[in-house]
Amino acid sequence: MTGTVSLTDRVVRGDVGAIARLITQIERRSPGVDEVLSELHHSAGRAHVIGVTGSPGSGKSTLVSALTEQYRRAGRTVGIIAVDPSSVFTGGAILGDRIRMAALAGDPGVFIRSIATRGALGGLSRAALDAITTLDAAGKDIIILETVGVGQAEVDVISAAQTVAVVSVPGMGDDVQAIKAGLLEIADVHVVNKSDREGAHKTVSELREMLRLAPRVPGQWTVPIKQTVSATGQGVPELVDRFDEHLAWLADTGERERRAWRNTATRIRWLAEELVLDRLKPGRPDFDRTVDEVTARRDDPLSAARRLMEQL
Amino acid sequence: MTGTVSLTDRVVRGDVGAIARLITQIERRSPGVDEVLSELHHSAGRAHVIGVTGSPGSGKSTLVSALTEQYRRAGRTVGIIAVDPSSVFTGGAILGDRIRMAALAGDPGVFIRSIATRGALGGLSRAALDAITTLDAAGKDIIILETVGVGQAEVDVISAAQTVAVVSVPGMGDDVQAIKAGLLEIADVHVVNKSDREGAHKTVSELREMLRLAPRVPGQWTVPIKQTVSATGQGVPELVDRFDEHLAWLADTGERERRAWRNTATRIRWLAEELVLDRLKPGRPDFDRTVDEVTARRDDPLSAARRLMEQL
Repeated sequence: MTGTVSLTDRVVRGDVGAIARLITQIERRSPGVDEVLSELHHSAGRAHVIGVTGSPGSGKSTLVSALTEQYRRAGRTVGIIAVDPSSVFTGGAILGDRIRMAALAGDPGVFIRSIATRGALGGLSRAALDAITTLDAAGKDIIILETVGVGQAEVDVISAAQTVAVVSVPGMGDDVQAIKAGLLEIADVHVVNKSDREGAHKTVSELREMLRLAPRVPGQWTVPIKQTVSATGQGVPELVDRFDEHLAWLADTGERERRAWRNTATRIRWLAEELVLDRLKPGRPDFDRTVDEVTARRDDPLSAARRLMEQL
Repeated sequence: MTGTVSLTDRVVRGDVGAIARLITQIERRSPGVDEVLSELHHSAGRAHVIGVTGSPGSGKSTLVSALTEQYRRAGRTVGIIAVDPSSVFTGGAILGDRIRMAALAGDPGVFIRSIATRGALGGLSRAALDAITTLDAAGKDIIILETVGVGQAEVDVISAAQTVAVVSVPGMGDDVQAIKAGLLEIADVHVVNKSDREGAHKTVSELREMLRLAPRVPGQWTVPIKQTVSATGQGVPELVDRFDEHLAWLADTGERERRAWRNTATRIRWLAEELVLDRLKPGRPDFDRTVDEVTARRDDPLSAARRLMEQL
């Protein structure tokens, strides 16, 4: 227990080794990690969590680097969580991106980490949310959550962010696919990256047209479309301004609190699920006996589950 | 309740409309569906569940059609569940496959259904397992579970099968990727489809080499490699023989019972999870009050989850 308390304290003090160790424990769902996260909860809630998502090849990682440099110039500390769904198709690309980002790694005001989980994709959302709590409690001003936006799983992950930037790039058929995958609805800011390329204006007008078709609700945030060239940093300071404006809007409208509430509810539900599953698992005599009965079809799964729950 | 009982009865009698309706309810997690499945549990457990997986383009669907024709010639009834993870990349291909399979749809001894779920991929495994129970209780002799084998989610889904066939195809770099994605370990039978193509022998020897590198355990099933040309039906009768041999091996070694036990355990855990999550959700006054406290950081998520569980 002393070791647990001390890990919490070291994370809160911003100890890089402690943060890295805790995130590894989060990925592995190590015993005791929930206790540490519950302690850290009291120190969290201050960071601005920004999700950056888009198709492979949209230059997300270079953009994240450029954003980080801009935040650092303003004296703000940054934590970066790159979510890697362990896909055989994207794994390599993400590794390459990490190498490009290594230049930032020498700055003590920046913490960079790729996270991956084995098994269920729900585990990924959960690990991302827990890693955010960790960096938030560690005092990072800005937390950037970078995901490859190709499927529902990534859309779920990004819901942990306060501000979501969807990155498109001129001249890729992928744009439309990214939007099909449900990313249009979750964008708080659209970024057209690599805007020095031919076709940038076309991409901007396509996005504008799509936003025009979306239902407008009075009092809602107006989603801006920002052009950037992340390789040169062009447009990046303006993009940071939009993120700040969005955070101010969230706070003014009470939406920041509502999103925090929703994330808290999700986390409590996950923990309750885990508490149940920990007691109902193979090897526990009560559970094993029940599974025997149901496998022999002398009992049915639902009655068995209800009875086991009552016995908890 | 009368309506529920009658749906169960109609499914057990093999009523196609009732089966289709129940699978739709499974996809949507409609209220009452767990009761029906628990009733059906008593009539299930007889079918041979065969998983067929492989990269897009390996001709899985044509193979499934050819297998179905072979089983029908032997007088066996077949249920086909095609699992579609709603991917933007594979959605179209699967639709096309369905159309090719439409020719089988006129046979009352064949039931074909694509299933998809919104949201978490865990929902897909669950829907697949429930759809299998449905077709099993409805008296299908053979249930073919067809998945696109590209990620962990599909590997999870296929664990519901008793016999897993991994389909490769000559001259595609994809083979190696399919194996990277963890499919080698789960194959009970390897199929090299489109074996009239150039490179079939090379694919067979690559697979043989990979199997040779895998650790051999005495008494374990020896994974065969079968060549097929599903468009002409070549090799399909022999493939069906291998599937039958594998089922006999499962029964002889007690492995069939062990897999049934494991699936039952999973189902009971899912149901228990759902019972908990149904009581701990936004809108329930106790839950909402607790989330308020934790959001205000007067309480932490883990203590809150533990207290809520005690109050259940």
